[in-house]
Amino acid sequence: MGQKKEIRLRSRFTQDIADSVMRYVASLPFDRRLYKHDIQGSIAHAEMLAEQKIISPRELTQIKKGLQLIQLEIEQGKFQFKPELEDIHMSIESRLYEIIGAAAGKLHTARSRNDQVALDIRLFARETAQDTINVLIKLCSALVNHAGRNIQAVMPGYTHLQQAQPVLYSHYVLAYFEMFRRDIDRLEDYLKRINVLPLGSGALAGVPYPIDREFVARKLGFSSVSANSVDAVADRDFIIEYEAIAAIAMMHLSRFAEEVIIWSSKEFGFIELSDAYTTSSSIMPQKKNPDVAELARGKSARVLGTLAGMLAVMKGLPLAYNRDMQEDKQGFFDTAYTVISSIDVMTGLVASLQVKPARMKASMDSYILATDIADYLARKGLPFREAHDIVGRLVAYAMSQKKELNELDIKGYKRFSPLFKEDVYKINADSSVRARSSYGGTSPDQVKLQIQKAREILRKYEA
Amino acid sequence: MGQKKEIRLRSRFTQDIADSVMRYVASLPFDRRLYKHDIQGSIAHAEMLAEQKIISPRELTQIKKGLQLIQLEIEQGKFQFKPELEDIHMSIESRLYEIIGAAAGKLHTARSRNDQVALDIRLFARETAQDTINVLIKLCSALVNHAGRNIQAVMPGYTHLQQAQPVLYSHYVLAYFEMFRRDIDRLEDYLKRINVLPLGSGALAGVPYPIDREFVARKLGFSSVSANSVDAVADRDFIIEYEAIAAIAMMHLSRFAEEVIIWSSKEFGFIELSDAYTTSSSIMPQKKNPDVAELARGKSARVLGTLAGMLAVMKGLPLAYNRDMQEDKQGFFDTAYTVISSIDVMTGLVASLQVKPARMKASMDSYILATDIADYLARKGLPFREAHDIVGRLVAYAMSQKKELNELDIKGYKRFSPLFKEDVYKINADSSVRARSSYGGTSPDQVKLQIQKAREILRKYEA
Amino acid sequence: MGQKKEIRLRSRFTQDIADSVMRYVASLPFDRRLYKHDIQGSIAHAEMLAEQKIISPRELTQIKKGLQLIQLEIEQGKFQFKPELEDIHMSIESRLYEIIGAAAGKLHTARSRNDQVALDIRLFARETAQDTINVLIKLCSALVNHAGRNIQAVMPGYTHLQQAQPVLYSHYVLAYFEMFRRDIDRLEDYLKRINVLPLGSGALAGVPYPIDREFVARKLGFSSVSANSVDAVADRDFIIEYEAIAAIAMMHLSRFAEEVIIWSSKEFGFIELSDAYTTSSSIMPQKKNPDVAELARGKSARVLGTLAGMLAVMKGLPLAYNRDMQEDKQGFFDTAYTVISSIDVMTGLVASLQVKPARMKASMDSYILATDIADYLARKGLPFREAHDIVGRLVAYAMSQKKELNELDIKGYKRFSPLFKEDVYKINADSSVRARSSYGGTSPDQVKLQIQKAREILRKYEA
Amino acid sequence: MGQKKEIRLRSRFTQDIADSVMRYVASLPFDRRLYKHDIQGSIAHAEMLAEQKIISPRELTQIKKGLQLIQLEIEQGKFQFKPELEDIHMSIESRLYEIIGAAAGKLHTARSRNDQVALDIRLFARETAQDTINVLIKLCSALVNHAGRNIQAVMPGYTHLQQAQPVLYSHYVLAYFEMFRRDIDRLEDYLKRINVLPLGSGALAGVPYPIDREFVARKLGFSSVSANSVDAVADRDFIIEYEAIAAIAMMHLSRFAEEVIIWSSKEFGFIELSDAYTTSSSIMPQKKNPDVAELARGKSARVLGTLAGMLAVMKGLPLAYNRDMQEDKQGFFDTAYTVISSIDVMTGLVASLQVKPARMKASMDSYILATDIADYLARKGLPFREAHDIVGRLVAYAMSQKKELNELDIKGYKRFSPLFKEDVYKINADSSVRARSSYGGTSPDQVKLQIQKAREILRKYEA
Repeated sequence: MGQKKEIRLRSRFTQDIADSVMRYVASLPFDRRLYKHDIQGSIAHAEMLAEQKIISPRELTQIKKGLQLIQLEIEQGKFQFKPELEDIHMSIESRLYEIIGAAAGKLHTARSRNDQVALDIRLFARETAQDTINVLIKLCSALVNHAGRNIQAVMPGYTHLQQAQPVLYSHYVLAYFEMFRRDIDRLEDYLKRINVLPLGSGALAGVPYPIDREFVARKLGFSSVSANSVDAVADRDFIIEYEAIAAIAMMHLSRFAEEVIIWSSKEFGFIELSDAYTTSSSIMPQKKNPDVAELARGKSARVLGTLAGMLAVMKGLPLAYNRDMQEDKQGFFDTAYTVISSIDVMTGLVASLQVKPARMKASMDSYILATDIADYLARKGLPFREAHDIVGRLVAYAMSQKKELNELDIKGYKRFSPLFKEDVYKINADSSVRARSSYGGTSPDQVKLQIQKAREILRKYEA
Repeated sequence: MGQKKEIRLRSRFTQDIADSVMRYVASLPFDRRLYKHDIQGSIAHAEMLAEQKIISPRELTQIKKGLQLIQLEIEQGKFQFKPELEDIHMSIESRLYEIIGAAAGKLHTARSRNDQVALDIRLFARETAQDTINVLIKLCSALVNHAGRNIQAVMPGYTHLQQAQPVLYSHYVLAYFEMFRRDIDRLEDYLKRINVLPLGSGALAGVPYPIDREFVARKLGFSSVSANSVDAVADRDFIIEYEAIAAIAMMHLSRFAEEVIIWSSKEFGFIELSDAYTTSSSIMPQKKNPDVAELARGKSARVLGTLAGMLAVMKGLPLAYNRDMQEDKQGFFDTAYTVISSIDVMTGLVASLQVKPARMKASMDSYILATDIADYLARKGLPFREAHDIVGRLVAYAMSQKKELNELDIKGYKRFSPLFKEDVYKINADSSVRARSSYGGTSPDQVKLQIQKAREILRKYEA
Repeated sequence: MGQKKEIRLRSRFTQDIADSVMRYVASLPFDRRLYKHDIQGSIAHAEMLAEQKIISPRELTQIKKGLQLIQLEIEQGKFQFKPELEDIHMSIESRLYEIIGAAAGKLHTARSRNDQVALDIRLFARETAQDTINVLIKLCSALVNHAGRNIQAVMPGYTHLQQAQPVLYSHYVLAYFEMFRRDIDRLEDYLKRINVLPLGSGALAGVPYPIDREFVARKLGFSSVSANSVDAVADRDFIIEYEAIAAIAMMHLSRFAEEVIIWSSKEFGFIELSDAYTTSSSIMPQKKNPDVAELARGKSARVLGTLAGMLAVMKGLPLAYNRDMQEDKQGFFDTAYTVISSIDVMTGLVASLQVKPARMKASMDSYILATDIADYLARKGLPFREAHDIVGRLVAYAMSQKKELNELDIKGYKRFSPLFKEDVYKINADSSVRARSSYGGTSPDQVKLQIQKAREILRKYEA
Repeated sequence: MGQKKEIRLRSRFTQDIADSVMRYVASLPFDRRLYKHDIQGSIAHAEMLAEQKIISPRELTQIKKGLQLIQLEIEQGKFQFKPELEDIHMSIESRLYEIIGAAAGKLHTARSRNDQVALDIRLFARETAQDTINVLIKLCSALVNHAGRNIQAVMPGYTHLQQAQPVLYSHYVLAYFEMFRRDIDRLEDYLKRINVLPLGSGALAGVPYPIDREFVARKLGFSSVSANSVDAVADRDFIIEYEAIAAIAMMHLSRFAEEVIIWSSKEFGFIELSDAYTTSSSIMPQKKNPDVAELARGKSARVLGTLAGMLAVMKGLPLAYNRDMQEDKQGFFDTAYTVISSIDVMTGLVASLQVKPARMKASMDSYILATDIADYLARKGLPFREAHDIVGRLVAYAMSQKKELNELDIKGYKRFSPLFKEDVYKINADSSVRARSSYGGTSPDQVKLQIQKAREILRKYEA
C-alpha cells in the first residue's frame, strides 16, 4: 500500500509550532488513559459510516482491525507514543494511517476532534460513575454489617464534641449509611442525565453527512442523542456535576475519618484500628497512627479544590469549544481516582474496626442524662422549658458538690422539684436510648429496623 | 395570666455570656428571614402534639393564635427583635411566652433547636429550589422566543474565539436553552431528594415521646421522614447540593454574559442592548456599558466561592451538630438571592435584545467556509484528512495573494485538486448552515425542530 | 443659588434604566460604609485642584464645607440615601450639588469614578490591615501571657492526634504565637506594597489637567503614586492579597479552635472554658458548648471561599475596569469583619482559659516515653534506627503483658538490649521535656527564652 | 561489612500494613522529586553531627559518599525505587543501609521524618520561588521591549469592553508590567519570610542532643532557625503563601491571555500571533487558534483550586503533624510547574507578537473622543458635570443623525453649547493621548518615561 504516514493539519501555516508550546498544549501525557474509550467510539462511528454507505464494508473491516490492533499494542505496552502527536486521538489516528493507509483518513468523515473528545470523556464519566456507585455500595454494606455486629454498644452521642445524650454506636454508624446512600442516589440521577451521545455534532455546527446518530447511540449504550451541536461540544457539566457529587461524598468520608481519628485517640479510646490500617513513626517507636483516615480527610479538600478550579475554568467562556476546557481532564481523572480509592480503603478500615463498648460506657458521666431527667419532669406535666431550667440548676448544684447526679439523694432532687420520685434513679444510659423510640431514633428496636431496611436497600442496589 | 416572660437555658452556668461573644454567635441578623418557616413548622408540630394528646386542644389553640399573631407582628414591622435572643427561634419562642404564657413552654416538647433549625432551612430550601426552577423556566422561555424571532440571522460560529463555521444565531441561543434545561432537571432531582422531614429527631438521638412524624410530614408536604436522627440534624447536603447546582447554573449564565459582552462590543457589534439594560459612565459621555452581563459574570464567581467555603465548613466535622454549621445560612441565602435575581435580570435583558444580522453576515470572511470546501472534496471521494490538507494549502495560498477564497478563479482551485469544479462557488454561509442537517445541527430545519421541541418541554415544565 | 439639583450621566440614552436593573447593579447598600474614605479622598482632591488653580479658593471652601456637612449628616443618621443613586459616590456628589450648587460639578474635574473607587477601597484596605495587625498583636500578647502563666503544665504532645512525646503546654501555645506573628509580618509587607495613590488615573488613561499627584499622596499619607493609569483602575491585588493573608490567619485560628474544642471535651479535659465564652443547649440542660471556637473554625472556611471567589471574579477580565469588579466589596468587607471579630473574640477566650495540668499529666501513659528510651540507647552507642527497633519490640511486649513500661522489671528490659541499666527508670515526662533543650525545643529553659523573646517582639510591634 | 539491609519501623505491630493501604498512603510516586533536597539536607545534618562529635569523622565520610552515590544512581536512572518504602526519605535511607551498613542508622540521630520533610519542601520552595522570580523578570523584560517597539500604536482603551478613550498600546502593555512586578515583590518578601531552618525540631518537641542548628542553617543558606519546634513541623504557610502569590500571578496572566484572545479575533484584529504559538483544527483547515493563551487562562483556575484545596486541608488540623499534610506536595509541585511553564511560554508569545496599528486606528470611531470634548468645555469654564451632560446629548444627536462627531458642522456643536469653537475639530486620538500627561498617564512622554523606569527596575532585578 502506498501509505500516507503522516497527518497534516497545519498546511495553512508557514511555521511549525514551537517545542515549548507543544509541551505546553499537549494532553497526551494524561489523556492517553482514554485510549479504550477513543477506540470504542471510533469503531461505533465507523460502523455507522458503513451502515450509511459513507464508507465501504472493506474500509470498515480495515478500520476495525487496525483499531483493535492498536488497542492490543497499547495494552501490551508496545505502542510508541510520540510527543509531537499532542493527544491520544491524533496518536491513534496516526498509527492507524501507518497500519491501514488511506482508509484511516475516512474515519474522520463527519467527525471532529471536538465531538470525539466530548464522547470519550463522557464514556469515561459513565464508567467512573458506575465504579463510584460500586465502591459506595460496598462501603454502605461494610457500615451496615459493622452496625449489625456492634448493636449492643452504647456510646455518648456528641454535639459540639460535648457529650449530649447516650446513643447506640450502631446508630451513629448508620448516620453514615444515610449520607453515602444519598451519594449513590445523586450518582444515579447523574448517570441518567449524562447518558447522552454528543458524537455527530462536528466541530460545533453539526455535520453535512447523512449520519445516523441513533445507531451510534445504541451501539454505545446511550439512551438519547444531544439536541444541540454547539452545546454538545461546549458542555462540561457532566464533569463538574460528578466533581460536585464527589466533593459531597468525600466530605461525608472526611467526617467519618474525623470520628475514626478522634475515637482512636488514647483519650477517647472507643475503637481500635487494625495494624493493617495504621502506620508507624520514624522516631517514636510506640506510635500507631490512623494515617488512612487522615489522608481521606485531607483528600476531601483536594477534591473540593478541583471542583472550585473547574467551575472557574468554565466561568465566562464563550461558546463553543475553547482550549481552556482541556483543563477538565487531569482534575477529573484525579478526582475519580481519589474518590474511588479513598472509599475503597476506608471500606477495608471499617471492616477491620474493633469497637470497645466498655470504654464507651466508662466515658459517660451522669450529666449526659440531664435531658432524660428533664423529659421525666415534662412527662409529669411541666412545660419542657421549665423542666429544662430546673434540671440545669440541678446539674449546677451537683457539679458544685462534685457529685454525679445519681449520687444525689432524693432530697437533693426534691429541692429542685417536688415532682422527683425514687424512679428518677432508674434513668440510665440504657433506659435513655430505649426511650428514644421515635421513628429514626436511637432505641435498639428502631436501629434494628433501620439495619433491616438498609439491607433491603443494599439488596436492591446490588441487583 | 401568671406569665413567665423569659426562657432560661443557662441555669447551669454561673456567669453570663460575654457581650462580644453574644454578638459573635448570634444568627438573628440573618436567620430572621426564616420566621415564616419557623412558624409554619411550629404549628405543624403543635398540631401533631395535640393529635397525640401530648398537649391539650386548648393549648394548641393558644399556640397557634400566638404564632399567627407573631407572624403578623413581624410582617407589619412591629416585632421587636432583641439581640440577646440570639436567633429567630428563641425570638419567636420568647415572644410566644409573653403572649400566651406557660403553654409556650410545651411547644418545645419532643423538639430540639437542632431538628427545628434543620426543618426551617429545609422548608426554605424547598421553596428556593422551586423559585429557582420558576425563573429558569422564564429564562428558557425568553431564550426560545428570542431564537424563534431571529431564525434568519446567520452568524460566524466560534471556537477559540476564532471564526469556525457559519451557524444560525438561533442555534447558538438554543445551546443556552439546553444548559438551563439541565439546571432545571438537576433542581427537580434535588427537590425529590430533599423532600424529607427532619423534625422528630430531637437534639440527635430521637425523642422519648409518642410522636407521629408522618402526620407532620403530611402537614408540611414532605414525602418521607428521615431514617436516622443523628444524620437528620447533622446533614447539610441539601444546602450544598443546591449551591453546587446554583454554581453550575451561574457558570452557564456567565458564559452567556460573556457572549453578550463580546457581541455588544463595537468591534463585534452583533447585538444592541436596550438602554434599560445598560449603564453610563461618570466621565465618558458616550459610554453604554453592559453592566448587567458583567455583574452576572462576576457573581458566578461569588457563588462558586460560597460552595467551596461551605464544603470546607463541613469537612472533617464529627457528628452530630457543631456550631460551625451555622455558617450555612448566610451563604445559602446569598446564593439563593444571587442566582434568582441574576437569572431574572438576564431574562429581561434577553427579551429586550436587538440582533443585527447584517453585521453578523458582514463579519464573516470566506475562510470560514474552508470546512465546507473540504467536505466538498470528501464527498467527491477524497479521505477527509487529505481534503483537509488540500484546503489548508488553498487557504494559505489565498491569504498570500490577499484574496478571499471566492475571489480565486477556478484554475486557482484546480492547482490544488482536479476535483474542484465550478460548483465550488456555490458554497456560501447559507449553503453551509443548510448542509449541517444532522440531528442537533445548525440547519434551519433542525433549529426549527428544536425550537418546537423546546416549546413542548416548556409547556410541560409550566404545567 | 440657582442650584442644579441633579446629576445627569445618561444624556445619551433615550430610555431610563429598568428598576430591576438598578437594584441589581446598585452597590449603595454595601459601599455606603466607604463614605468617610470617599469624603477624605474628595477633600484631598479638591485641595490639590485649588493648589493647582483648577478651582478657586472659594470653590474649595464651599466643597470642603459641603463635604464636612455631609459626613455629619451621615454620622448622625440624617442623610437620606436614595436608591436611584446607585453608589455612595453618586449619593455624596448629588447631595453636594443640593448644598453648594454648581461648584460641586467641579469636584469631578480630573477625576473619574474609576480612580475614585480605587482610592476609597485602598484607604479602607490600609485601615483594615492596620486594624487586623492590632487585634493580632493583642491575640499574640494573650497567648504569650497565657503561656507564661502556665509554664509548669506538661501535656502529651500529639502527632496524628496520637500521643507522641511530652511537651510543655506553653510550648504548644507558643507555636500559635509563631503563626500569628507570621500573619503580622505578612500584613506589614502588604501595607508597604499597597500604600500607593491611584487617584489621578482618570477613567483609565490619565487626566488632561495639570494635577499634582504627589500633593494628594502626601495629604492622604501614601508613600508613592501609581505608575500606570490603566493598572491603577484595573488592579484589585490589594484586596486579594489581604484576603489571602486573612485566609491564612483564619486557618491558624481554626487550628487553635480545633485544639480548644478537643481539649475541652470531657474525654480530654485539658482546659475549661469560661462560662462567658460558652453557650447552652435548648434541650440538654447540662451542655456547655465551645461555640466560639466552633464558629471561628467554621468562619475560616467562609474566608477561604471569598478568596477563591474573588480570584475567580478577576480571572480572565480584560483591562481596564469591568463591572464584575464591583463584586470585590462585599467579600472584602465581610472578610475584614470576620477576621477582626474572630481574632478579637478568641483573644478574650484565651485570656479566660483555665488549664488543668493534673488532667494533662494523668492522660499520659508510659508509652509516650518510647522515644526517650530509644534516645537513651542511642546515647549508649546504638545507631538510632536499631534503638527504635528495639524499643518498638519492648513496647509490643509490654502491651501484650498489659503493663506500662515502668512496670517492667529490669530483666524485662535487658531481654531486648544489654545496654539497659537501672537508670532507665529515671526517664519520665519531666526528664523528657527537660532533655529537649535544642533551640526551639520544649525544655522549660528554651520555652522561657522564647517567652522572653516573644515579649520583646511584642514590645516592638506595640511601639 | 555486616550490613543490616532493612529499616524496621513497625516492630510494635503484629500485622503488616495492607497493600491497598500502602498504595494509598505512599508519597513516593510524587515526593521522589525531592531527592536532591533530601540528600542536601542529610549531608548538612551529618556534617553538623560530626562537628558536634555525635558521629565520627569516618562515619561522616561514609554517609557523604553513600549519599553522593545515591544521588548519582537516581540521576542516572539506576536507582531502584521500591513501592514498599513509602517515601523518598525511606528510599534513600534504606539504600544508604545497603551501601554503608550500620553508620546509616546514625544519620537519623537527632532528626525525625517530620523535620526532615519540613526541611526538604522548604528547600524546594526556596528554589521554586527563585525560579518563579526569574521567569517573571523575563516576562517583564519581554513586555517592556514589546512596549518599546510599539510606542507609536494608538488603540482604543476599554472599560466594560466598550471603547472608552484612546490609549497608547504600549501603555496597556505596561499595565501588565506593573502587575507582574508586584508579583516579583511578593515573592521577594516571601523568600525572606521562609528562609528559616526547621531541622532540629525532631518529631515535634525538639531533640535531646547537643546539636548546632546555626551550623546547619549556614550550610544550607538559611538566614535563621525556627523558634518553636511544634510550629516548625506543623507549619505549611510557606506552601500556601506561595500558592496564593502564584494564584495572583496566574490571574494577571489570565487577564493578559484574555486580551490576546480578544485582540487576535478576526473582529478586533489588533495583533497577529506567530504561527509557532498557535494551533490548527482537526476539521477546519483555516483555523489558527490562540491555544497557548487559552490554556494560560484556564490554568489560572487550576492554581486557584489548588490554593483553596490546600487551605481546606490545613483548616481545623490540631498540632502538630497530621498525615493530611502530605496532601501539600502534589498541589505545590503542580502549581510550581504550572506557573513557571505558563509564564515561560507566554513570554515567548509576547516576544513573537505582531501589532497592527492600522487596524487599531481604524477601529476607533469619533465617539471615543467624547471625554476629550467634555474636558474641552470644562477647560473653558464649565463644571465638568455640565460638560458631561452636554456632550452626552451631543453624542445622542450625532448618533440619531448617523454621523460621526467630526462630521457635525460647527452649528451642530453650538446648538449644545456656545463654547464650541472651530478648534474642537482638532481633537483626535493623537491629541487625546498627548493630553493625558499626568504622571502615569498615556501620553507618549509619560509612557516613554515609564519604559525607562521599568528598564531601571529590571536592571536592578537582574543584578
